[in-house]
Amino acid sequence: MTIDLEIARATTLQPIAAIAARAGIPEAAVEPYGRLKAKIAPEAVAAGRDGRLILVTAINPTPAGEGKTTMSVGLADALNLTGRRTMLCLREPSLGPCFGQKGGATGGGHAQIGPMDDINLHFTGDFHAVTAAHNLLAAMIDNHVHWGNALDIDVRRISWRRVLDMNDRALRQTVQGLGGPGSGFPRESGFDITVASEVMAILCLAGDPADLQDRLGRIVIGQTRDRRPVTARDLKADGAMAVLLKDALRPNLVQTLAGNPALVHGGPFANIAHGCNSVIATRTALRLADYVVTEAGFGADLGAEKFFDIKCRQAGLVPDAAVLVATVRALKMNGGVARADLAREDVAAVTRGAANLVRHIENLRLFGVPVVVALNHFGGDSEAEIAAVRAAATAAWVDLHVCRQWAEGGAGAVDLAEAVAALAEGGSARFAPLYPDDLPLFDKIETVARRIYRAERVEAGPAIRRQLAAWDAAGHGHLPVCIAKTQYSFSADPALLGAPEGHVLPVREVRLAAGAGFVVAVCGDIMTMPGLPRQPAAEAIHLDPDGLVQGLF
Amino acid sequence: MTIDLEIARATTLQPIAAIAARAGIPEAAVEPYGRLKAKIAPEAVAAGRDGRLILVTAINPTPAGEGKTTMSVGLADALNLTGRRTMLCLREPSLGPCFGQKGGATGGGHAQIGPMDDINLHFTGDFHAVTAAHNLLAAMIDNHVHWGNALDIDVRRISWRRVLDMNDRALRQTVQGLGGPGSGFPRESGFDITVASEVMAILCLAGDPADLQDRLGRIVIGQTRDRRPVTARDLKADGAMAVLLKDALRPNLVQTLAGNPALVHGGPFANIAHGCNSVIATRTALRLADYVVTEAGFGADLGAEKFFDIKCRQAGLVPDAAVLVATVRALKMNGGVARADLAREDVAAVTRGAANLVRHIENLRLFGVPVVVALNHFGGDSEAEIAAVRAAATAAWVDLHVCRQWAEGGAGAVDLAEAVAALAEGGSARFAPLYPDDLPLFDKIETVARRIYRAERVEAGPAIRRQLAAWDAAGHGHLPVCIAKTQYSFSADPALLGAPEGHVLPVREVRLAAGAGFVVAVCGDIMTMPGLPRQPAAEAIHLDPDGLVQGLF
Repeated sequence: MTIDLEIARATTLQPIAAIAARAGIPEAAVEPYGRLKAKIAPEAVAAGRDGRLILVTAINPTPAGEGKTTMSVGLADALNLTGRRTMLCLREPSLGPCFGQKGGATGGGHAQIGPMDDINLHFTGDFHAVTAAHNLLAAMIDNHVHWGNALDIDVRRISWRRVLDMNDRALRQTVQGLGGPGSGFPRESGFDITVASEVMAILCLAGDPADLQDRLGRIVIGQTRDRRPVTARDLKADGAMAVLLKDALRPNLVQTLAGNPALVHGGPFANIAHGCNSVIATRTALRLADYVVTEAGFGADLGAEKFFDIKCRQAGLVPDAAVLVATVRALKMNGGVARADLAREDVAAVTRGAANLVRHIENLRLFGVPVVVALNHFGGDSEAEIAAVRAAATAAWVDLHVCRQWAEGGAGAVDLAEAVAALAEGGSARFAPLYPDDLPLFDKIETVARRIYRAERVEAGPAIRRQLAAWDAAGHGHLPVCIAKTQYSFSADPALLGAPEGHVLPVREVRLAAGAGFVVAVCGDIMTMPGLPRQPAAEAIHLDPDGLVQGLF
Repeated sequence: MTIDLEIARATTLQPIAAIAARAGIPEAAVEPYGRLKAKIAPEAVAAGRDGRLILVTAINPTPAGEGKTTMSVGLADALNLTGRRTMLCLREPSLGPCFGQKGGATGGGHAQIGPMDDINLHFTGDFHAVTAAHNLLAAMIDNHVHWGNALDIDVRRISWRRVLDMNDRALRQTVQGLGGPGSGFPRESGFDITVASEVMAILCLAGDPADLQDRLGRIVIGQTRDRRPVTARDLKADGAMAVLLKDALRPNLVQTLAGNPALVHGGPFANIAHGCNSVIATRTALRLADYVVTEAGFGADLGAEKFFDIKCRQAGLVPDAAVLVATVRALKMNGGVARADLAREDVAAVTRGAANLVRHIENLRLFGVPVVVALNHFGGDSEAEIAAVRAAATAAWVDLHVCRQWAEGGAGAVDLAEAVAALAEGGSARFAPLYPDDLPLFDKIETVARRIYRAERVEAGPAIRRQLAAWDAAGHGHLPVCIAKTQYSFSADPALLGAPEGHVLPVREVRLAAGAGFVVAVCGDIMTMPGLPRQPAAEAIHLDPDGLVQGLF
């Protein structure tokens, strides 16, 4: 058994009704899903505390791991431990990847949320609802064409694919509609994993059921023969999709192993989408708690930028502080050390790699959000290495706190909690998105590329520039942009670690997510349907004689 | 608003905890899913009452409708009304068809179960779990081939398709694995609707989690190049599939509008599978109640035969009585009246059509189960027509009760309840399946065809006979057979109504469902992936401003 699993199994979770009551959630707002999970009716949670919003983000991820989720859990536990009423907001993990690589997405060590099996498996069914809503629209498109195609949809230009919450490479590209006239018109299409669905992004950005249906209706599924956009509303699919999502729209309440409340809700991809938990969960938490800890996907160049420029912009959220998570090991890799050599002390490499940390600090300041660095402590870190990170942070006028939440839970992150609370209460935040709504779409991409990625220029062919200009003209110019590039580098080249400058950001494709409310700029190969590895984790997963899940973590 | 919906919305359902308590379910066995649904842990329900098992079945269905589910609900309510502790066991409805034709599968009038929206939409996620488990196996097959195909699977002979709970004709036949080497080997395949999955049949026939995993492991997904069967266990998929199904294996508790307990669990197709709710639900109900009312799909020729020969045989269940549901309208159609002319009184047609009723009565007796006829009353039925049905029943030595459960709820089925209770307590049942386990597979098909369908002979090509003999030799000969044919006739010709004799049953294809534990004989065109109609119900489904679902019923 892994240590994470051992710790989780040794912890007796509290009845979810008790967690809800302590969090100040009225009983009428709590819909239990078993004994340890509940859905919360946001409309039954009155405006109350107007909490401080704290974003946990990270340096560029490396194979060494950063522990952003354990840090979020540890910080929330530490804030509660120090007497501050705090709620955690996280994304729901995707089911498919659990069968590829061992390990879920519920934290680790003494900084976990539970029940881990349920959260990583079907949980409360939200992702299955997204799958169903997405695929209903797909079925209605082909059904419309089959019965006469009154809308004159160009079947060659249908961009709406299907989704499954499964790592299944065989479905990436398919020909469907075979088998004769009764099965419709053959055409090329394929499947993405459910977290890549625009419906998932919509679920996470919608403010209420009416806004949800509105956004679903705006989804563009393709074009007519004369190149006009066709929407889900044109197909009259938006109402039924909203009905399929009505329960999924309610945030899920679970708990940390320390018994503190966590809303775990929604999980859009962090590359072709914005990678944050739902707006509804964050807003609900802000009404219930004095501090709300949330996280964004990948490193701050992608995750924090999208959190600020897409989620906060759309939802009118105002973040009060940001926590930038780093590890000595990951900074060493950013400083050029190979994964196999991470155990050896290398202060010079840490110092070189800290350039990545400093770049993220500078970037977070561009949004007017005060920053503190949380160094996630690993057993092999040397004092000299830690001092090197601290020196880099101090030179950037930022505090650094060494955190031991994995080993100690909230108690290992109390210093960080005090610092974060002071920062959030200090009133130094002057949040503003990076660019105004009315900047043309191409200029928005260029602004992110130059100011956040420090690219010298954006490379985009004339077709892409024409498309962006056409969307500007068609009334989509006010949307923010969502850049899909590698998470491993500030650049589009995953091998360019540290703090590269003067590179080129190549935009290969642009996509309109009119329902979610952003324009995606695809910069590099983005995989939207993963495959299983040679030896999938699924082969070892089973129920033991006591009915416990084995092999998942 | 439809009358069904109006009645349902006007009824205040009781908290599911109260329903569970009144049903004698220990609190520790109840896992709430919201306020009106719960999953029941069968292992926490002690052996107790050893109830009587009553099957509700019907004449061959016609477009006029029979109301088998309203009769099951009404009978359970009536048995409870007359002081008999009774539990209802029904199948879960499929999600996909809700978006095609308006109307769910939760009964009607004053004989409904609730909450109807939830039951017809995602309910407790069981079907989504079946979808995920089924598709995980599919992904592991293609993944195995992709990474070297150590088992030497013949990709041309993979019979395991994928499933979605959606009416989506475009997925019936596909080519997958396109897009280059990274996406695997292209091959033909396709999708069925989730209720057609063998995993669904397995979920409904498994006795406990260990049996579930065992059955999943026995699934045959295709053949090797040298024509040996390849199983899910060979692919090491059985454990992870069982984990995905661990919650789905627990029966769901809901209530009738009269507040009586109903276990609604599992929903296999009634043609290529056996069409009954889960064995676990039926067994759990028998431990809790003195009477258990359950139903089988389609008419008694398919549904009751499979209930007896597959479900009861495998699970060791002993039915005590059968209720055969008929309507004057459906008998008229069986007597040759067109749907448009049903409103006109036609006693002669009723008498002609009653041959269908009598044939089913004779068939049910072949299993040693005593029968009573429940005539589901419709407003337009004339006294003379009802008398004609009664005369036919009496001539067959069977009682007939006119039931008004749709209009009156349980009070409208009290006479039937008294008769059923007397029959079940009378000790006249001598249940035995139609054929012994050790009869060769072809002879089993022939036995059902001759004795139940009254076919003159079975037509099967030499390849089919060879295949059946090969399965006999390979150790599958002990399995029962599951005949997939039209539900509209005793024959394989849907236009042959009434009580045809001397017809030929053409077996077009045979399939081994080694996990479910039966051999399917496909006799005619069986659709395993429906399509949406020209104007799908989905177009009118939406949430109203109060958050209520509109347009689903």
